[in-house]
Amino acid sequence: MRIDLNADLGESFGTWTLGDDDAMLGLVTSANVACGFHAGDARTLERTVAAAADRGVAVGAQVSYRDLAGFGRRFVDADPADLEADVLYQIGALEALCRVAGTRVAYLKPHGALYHAVGSHEGQARALVSALSRYDATLPLLHQEGSLVSRLAQEAGVRVVAEAFADRGYRPDGTLVPRSEQGAVLHDPEDVAARMLRLVREGVVEAVDGTDVPVRVASICTHGDSPGAVAMARAVRTALEADGVQLAAFAG
Amino acid sequence: MRIDLNADLGESFGTWTLGDDDAMLGLVTSANVACGFHAGDARTLERTVAAAADRGVAVGAQVSYRDLAGFGRRFVDADPADLEADVLYQIGALEALCRVAGTRVAYLKPHGALYHAVGSHEGQARALVSALSRYDATLPLLHQEGSLVSRLAQEAGVRVVAEAFADRGYRPDGTLVPRSEQGAVLHDPEDVAARMLRLVREGVVEAVDGTDVPVRVASICTHGDSPGAVAMARAVRTALEADGVQLAAFAG
Amino acid sequence: MRIDLNADLGESFGTWTLGDDDAMLGLVTSANVACGFHAGDARTLERTVAAAADRGVAVGAQVSYRDLAGFGRRFVDADPADLEADVLYQIGALEALCRVAGTRVAYLKPHGALYHAVGSHEGQARALVSALSRYDATLPLLHQEGSLVSRLAQEAGVRVVAEAFADRGYRPDGTLVPRSEQGAVLHDPEDVAARMLRLVREGVVEAVDGTDVPVRVASICTHGDSPGAVAMARAVRTALEADGVQLAAFAG
Amino acid sequence: MRIDLNADLGESFGTWTLGDDDAMLGLVTSANVACGFHAGDARTLERTVAAAADRGVAVGAQVSYRDLAGFGRRFVDADPADLEADVLYQIGALEALCRVAGTRVAYLKPHGALYHAVGSHEGQARALVSALSRYDATLPLLHQEGSLVSRLAQEAGVRVVAEAFADRGYRPDGTLVPRSEQGAVLHDPEDVAARMLRLVREGVVEAVDGTDVPVRVASICTHGDSPGAVAMARAVRTALEADGVQLAAFAG
Repeated sequence: MRIDLNADLGESFGTWTLGDDDAMLGLVTSANVACGFHAGDARTLERTVAAAADRGVAVGAQVSYRDLAGFGRRFVDADPADLEADVLYQIGALEALCRVAGTRVAYLKPHGALYHAVGSHEGQARALVSALSRYDATLPLLHQEGSLVSRLAQEAGVRVVAEAFADRGYRPDGTLVPRSEQGAVLHDPEDVAARMLRLVREGVVEAVDGTDVPVRVASICTHGDSPGAVAMARAVRTALEADGVQLAAFAG
Repeated sequence: MRIDLNADLGESFGTWTLGDDDAMLGLVTSANVACGFHAGDARTLERTVAAAADRGVAVGAQVSYRDLAGFGRRFVDADPADLEADVLYQIGALEALCRVAGTRVAYLKPHGALYHAVGSHEGQARALVSALSRYDATLPLLHQEGSLVSRLAQEAGVRVVAEAFADRGYRPDGTLVPRSEQGAVLHDPEDVAARMLRLVREGVVEAVDGTDVPVRVASICTHGDSPGAVAMARAVRTALEADGVQLAAFAG
Repeated sequence: MRIDLNADLGESFGTWTLGDDDAMLGLVTSANVACGFHAGDARTLERTVAAAADRGVAVGAQVSYRDLAGFGRRFVDADPADLEADVLYQIGALEALCRVAGTRVAYLKPHGALYHAVGSHEGQARALVSALSRYDATLPLLHQEGSLVSRLAQEAGVRVVAEAFADRGYRPDGTLVPRSEQGAVLHDPEDVAARMLRLVREGVVEAVDGTDVPVRVASICTHGDSPGAVAMARAVRTALEADGVQLAAFAG
Repeated sequence: MRIDLNADLGESFGTWTLGDDDAMLGLVTSANVACGFHAGDARTLERTVAAAADRGVAVGAQVSYRDLAGFGRRFVDADPADLEADVLYQIGALEALCRVAGTRVAYLKPHGALYHAVGSHEGQARALVSALSRYDATLPLLHQEGSLVSRLAQEAGVRVVAEAFADRGYRPDGTLVPRSEQGAVLHDPEDVAARMLRLVREGVVEAVDGTDVPVRVASICTHGDSPGAVAMARAVRTALEADGVQLAAFAG
């Protein structure tokens, strides 16, 4: 039994730092590295991918809208053709920094508002899949099971890796509890770790209403920039390893 | 006898257009394509490199300072390590757009104030050479004969391609007449064409004081964004071809 | 009988120019001047408002989303409180450039996708009205009759100036023909001029289906950046003046 | 006997935070607030000036080069006329946010590399003074005694307020020890506080060579973004107040 653990990294910008990349790189198996459009100046990215390479952590391109001021968390109604070019640009930029560090972009994961948009916005979802396919159709896409972009990617022959969110509450239908509602975010590392262990072992997670909901998962996402991020990632990793689950990147 | 003809392209940004890329791509053999830091949104770059690939024009990464408002024409006292990462980021971004167009980044040419800075600023020149060497040491650098960056690149084993400027006046020592002085910029296409033909055939150009100055040249740079840019590039190309000079990219 | 003629100006950025501001300033009575977020570097804005002041043209703050690459034409799902601060920032920036030119920001007109969004998006519309009211509740808002932001502004005691679009087709209900449909944009200057004269004199415009639709108008918007912009603005102005209509800014 | 205490504030950007503005606003009498070009999204600035107004802290416009990625710490060889417009733009942007908070821009202090540049670069120094004079010639300029911009400002009739740096070493000639040298930065809050008290009382500070150097000072600058910033500002304030020195803003 094996599982991947992913987190967002490389999200500092110039003088501003965010998250504890060093600590997280000791815990995760896949690093979703920013590509400069919502965060990540080139020097930060260079350091982040070099550190990931040193530790054998897989690097994914965490592409996003061009929106530093909004940290990529605001939907931008971008023309799909513009978005497609922006995604290619970002993948390539990160790839060059990977190349000089002796690693490579091993998968794609959209960030923030783009992640949510491609879950249902057809034009933008197709743009993302098209960029990925044209760049390298063998690169996997990391997204939620059942999202529109997941279906479109599979139709295009792209491997989709399903992820679950460690610190998020689920509804009985398998979707996330919206952030505006009670139970959206979980804060106790031990509780979260136990949930994730059960998810990996049994394929189910307890929903907010107390029922069990089946969730397909090949990678667990832990948030990299919240105050307790490191503690939570460590709790999840520790619980999984203690139970004999192997942690390994899904992408070479 | 053969020579390369290069020009800056892909320098539009979003709604703003600059130059007549289409016409220039029919005349030059090498396109110095912007990489987004001084100009060039991703969609523009995607179109530009696709058009270059269609016409068999070689693509160079025209890297620059991060300065859209200044169009990369203002010296920025960037930390060399930051600059090196920025250069890698830009090469990679353009490379991805080249890859999907079936071409590749075939050489490097710094833009504007960075071009001038690396002619004498050691820290920045070393950063540029280091970025190039680490990314792909077989990529040639396009710059002026005798510049600091040319020497440093050669010492690092990088091939340097010497360029001359079609519409600029030269001083007896082989350097350009500063833009603030009389004779800095030449405007007559026929005169420029005749000068370039002589330069290619005889290796000399007439300096502002009427003396002949030897200039090494493997590529002629014509400016892509001035009003008469297309007419001048056409005049140069026509004069060279009429005299039996073969126009060909220096980089595969 | 008097009417205002407005157009978007100051939309160049750095090396990139857009529109013929000089010619337009000789034709319009109100200049919607960009504020740097979708277009307009500070030097361009300084020149534009100085030229407007010289010619007695009223200056409006053409505020927008922070999106240079998209020219403010893409909806951005900005948090209303962020948007409100962004609007204040932009008004103030333009105000300083007006002050040194001996003029002032005399009204507010949102640009592009923000213009459309505040027509129906309550959070963003309230943010715009709040920014305006807090900055100077006596400044008029220039927008379309019947839009959400117009109603909210009026409720807040802000004067709303209704504008019509010279080169756009209208539907029988008084709304614009969407750009994706036949008849959305009109191209013949004489035809447009005649429509605008009738609109001013009779308060009606012929809709795409041939019926007459009443439209309230205190200002006519002519586009400043299309190829035939100057010709169309001149035709409209000439037709109005020839018929004795006085052209005058609505704001002092 | 009275003195002003100033610090750089409002230097967060979007999701990224920098410094503890809240704590610093309880200690300083003047806040040099960023204006968006090197730091400070509009919402951050709105909050910062509102908090300053609440606490009776004077607000200064901390204008800078347009360089978010470099945090304004890199010299940019900007054309003076462009720089002048950029300075006006920034003052105005901050002014609007001040206005709605019931305060105003009370003085000007350039940031980072611009601060250093105007100390000796005539073109840029003149641009800064010209922007200030044209906007409001009664606004004081906060800079170091003896700098070029101080002299030019005084010649232009602008009031110049001399500042000393709490945590920096001085050379016997009254200039700062360069950051690359031993003794450039002082780290002990009590030592720094004692130095500042002596400076205020006696007008002298001990230089790195042990000699006393006279320094004119009307405001003490404490750095707002280093880890021990709050502790140091508190130590300085406490020492001054304990000795009966009144802390008060130099600008109304």
